[in-house]
Amino acid sequence: MRLLLFTLLLLGGAAPADESPWRSPDPDNLLILTLEGGAVTIELSPTLAPENVAQIKALVRSGRLQGSDFYRVIENFVAQGGLEADQEDIAKLPAEFERELTAFNPFTPVEQGDPFAPETGFWQGFPIGRDPETGRAWPIHCPGVMAMARDAAPDTASSEFYFPIGQAPRHLDRNLTVVGRVLTGFRLIEGARRGDRSVDNGVIADKAARTKILGFAIAGDLPDADRPDIRILRTDHPDFLALLAAQRDRDSDFWRHPPRRWLDVCTVTPPVKAGG
Amino acid sequence: MRLLLFTLLLLGGAAPADESPWRSPDPDNLLILTLEGGAVTIELSPTLAPENVAQIKALVRSGRLQGSDFYRVIENFVAQGGLEADQEDIAKLPAEFERELTAFNPFTPVEQGDPFAPETGFWQGFPIGRDPETGRAWPIHCPGVMAMARDAAPDTASSEFYFPIGQAPRHLDRNLTVVGRVLTGFRLIEGARRGDRSVDNGVIADKAARTKILGFAIAGDLPDADRPDIRILRTDHPDFLALLAAQRDRDSDFWRHPPRRWLDVCTVTPPVKAGG
Repeated sequence: MRLLLFTLLLLGGAAPADESPWRSPDPDNLLILTLEGGAVTIELSPTLAPENVAQIKALVRSGRLQGSDFYRVIENFVAQGGLEADQEDIAKLPAEFERELTAFNPFTPVEQGDPFAPETGFWQGFPIGRDPETGRAWPIHCPGVMAMARDAAPDTASSEFYFPIGQAPRHLDRNLTVVGRVLTGFRLIEGARRGDRSVDNGVIADKAARTKILGFAIAGDLPDADRPDIRILRTDHPDFLALLAAQRDRDSDFWRHPPRRWLDVCTVTPPVKAGG
Repeated sequence: MRLLLFTLLLLGGAAPADESPWRSPDPDNLLILTLEGGAVTIELSPTLAPENVAQIKALVRSGRLQGSDFYRVIENFVAQGGLEADQEDIAKLPAEFERELTAFNPFTPVEQGDPFAPETGFWQGFPIGRDPETGRAWPIHCPGVMAMARDAAPDTASSEFYFPIGQAPRHLDRNLTVVGRVLTGFRLIEGARRGDRSVDNGVIADKAARTKILGFAIAGDLPDADRPDIRILRTDHPDFLALLAAQRDRDSDFWRHPPRRWLDVCTVTPPVKAGG
């Protein structure tokens, strides 16, 4: 059945093997955070969340996010940043938690029977969950995705964002709006200084102790020479299917207790090349 | 069924509610790595892997590991360190991948039907998988555990260790020897400089670019005043059961697509208090 799915995908209009397996992100959707240790680059996707992505880009361009930091960081959960206090003049955003399944085509299937999604796979490098029965699909909270924090009501995100660090908090899937994923420099976010979950829900009271975000920029606003040179392996290309197959294959003599031929979608990281 | 399990556990001799929920790690099994950013503390467990733990402690005490670094670091997989080249005078260790199920009592169940283990839960803070049919149990490769690297043959670990970073590489469970888990400072390992998986399998050729390990020590060898003051929430205490129940409860109005009442064991981090 799985082989059949892959074959159908290949026959169904995915990238031909003789096309380049690499694509460059649209500079207008490439967010750059500058931390003390260097740059973090993030691909934003208006397909995932058009209104949320538009507002982040507008906030970056307005300079409103300058001086913010990772003010709530919880071990093995999330690093949260942005403007800590509610800003009355920044619009509250609609929930963009999921879409119709066909919004994420071509879709490269990874697994069925995942604990939190009937089907998992990739669309343009993003980990996606799908439910064929309801016809809905949604980005998955793997480590390294970027999403928007909110209050109890669904339409309350505004300027705060978070990145899962450690094990994927999959219970957040379809409950918060994912806007992108980190392409390079994720170690700088994983290395952010932690708060204590049992004290003020992980907020770091001492501002001097927080990991700062020194700058925000959209690559497309920079001179050509300053834009990061990044390429992403196309997840609809046969090279990525080969990578999935290799990661699933655990038949060699190394494996003393050969695990199920089962792939957790969040253990798959679509390769990224940076810097030429 | 799950409620029944918890009740049985409570009735079956777990810690009474009026005992302290906190325990201190044995200083003789508390490993301290000093990185540029500070200390990482790791609880080693001879119950998990007696011979592997004994050799690590002997290597630390002999000074043989001084000057080593994280020489192979792969995004969303592992940070690997220790002596890079094989040292002929360091013994090859037996595989200590799993044990009889009763070795890990009292056991606090978390979930059934995990993709890689019939049952998951905790023993003394360590995430454990169990198979009641075979009577076997094994530590789980959640982010932050410490394990021993090896070659293709099972009994070939010697001085190299690794820490999963990012999503748990569960396919490694029962295939490598887990020796402990990080209690504090994991962000410093998650922040280690990366290699490129597609080039020499993630080995960082430029030694100057690697994240260094400036020192290794066993807390019990230090003067009392220099030993880290760390307490760990007992995973057999009712306070931990309450924490599990709270993490499983997703019935509030926050959840627009209430997820299954299902807990991924690797999203649960037994709380640690450090420094008084």
